[in-house]
Amino acid sequence: MAGKKGVEQAAQAGEDGRFAYEGLDRVIHERARLGVLTALVTNRRGLTWNELKVMCSLTDGNLSRHLGILEADGLVVQEKGESGNRPQTVVKVTAEGRKRYLGYLKTLEQVVKDAAAEATGRKLGFARG
Amino acid sequence: MAGKKGVEQAAQAGEDGRFAYEGLDRVIHERARLGVLTALVTNRRGLTWNELKVMCSLTDGNLSRHLGILEADGLVVQEKGESGNRPQTVVKVTAEGRKRYLGYLKTLEQVVKDAAAEATGRKLGFARG
Repeated sequence: MAGKKGVEQAAQAGEDGRFAYEGLDRVIHERARLGVLTALVTNRRGLTWNELKVMCSLTDGNLSRHLGILEADGLVVQEKGESGNRPQTVVKVTAEGRKRYLGYLKTLEQVVKDAAAEATGRKLGFARG
Repeated sequence: MAGKKGVEQAAQAGEDGRFAYEGLDRVIHERARLGVLTALVTNRRGLTWNELKVMCSLTDGNLSRHLGILEADGLVVQEKGESGNRPQTVVKVTAEGRKRYLGYLKTLEQVVKDAAAEATGRKLGFARG
């Protein structure tokens, strides 16, 4: 069957890793962390702990855990300060965090583009039939 | 500090869960499964096991594990057949899988849109300053 063979060959020849999406950095891709980073990237001056918690619908425990992972990778910083007489932590994305986020975003846009092709009926990966 | 208070109030009042992205279904969001589903959604007639493996850069073990998770949730089916005299498995997305994928995609597009707002300098979530 020439059609079938063509399919296999196309997959082998030109489409290796077409849907691997290796740019989807696992540190960023996790849902809660993606929300936290998107909130921070779009609010350059930083967000307080409480703002982040509310905007991302996270518990203190989850926010703490995910910020720890992002901080360990150098993507965010937590600045301890005061507001009035109360301690207040402001979280900011770092330059490195912004850079990695924007790299991640490129792949994410590719996924959306690939998926949108489906809506128009265009086939990706190889030509069948 | 009126500005600060305004910020906290805005976060409390209108922006709860603004960045929670609850539509990012964890079954679909995992990177390998997102690749597999995108490949299948864009290739309606299905893909053979080998095609999927190559296109998604997965090992047999990983592909098997992720297909198991997708199948358990009713998002894909594996049809055992033959090609020539060799057994061949063709994997297809189900109607339910397509529906859930498209729902997921809407949230993904929202993330991209939110993040793109950053490039134009527009602030999201609340007005500061």
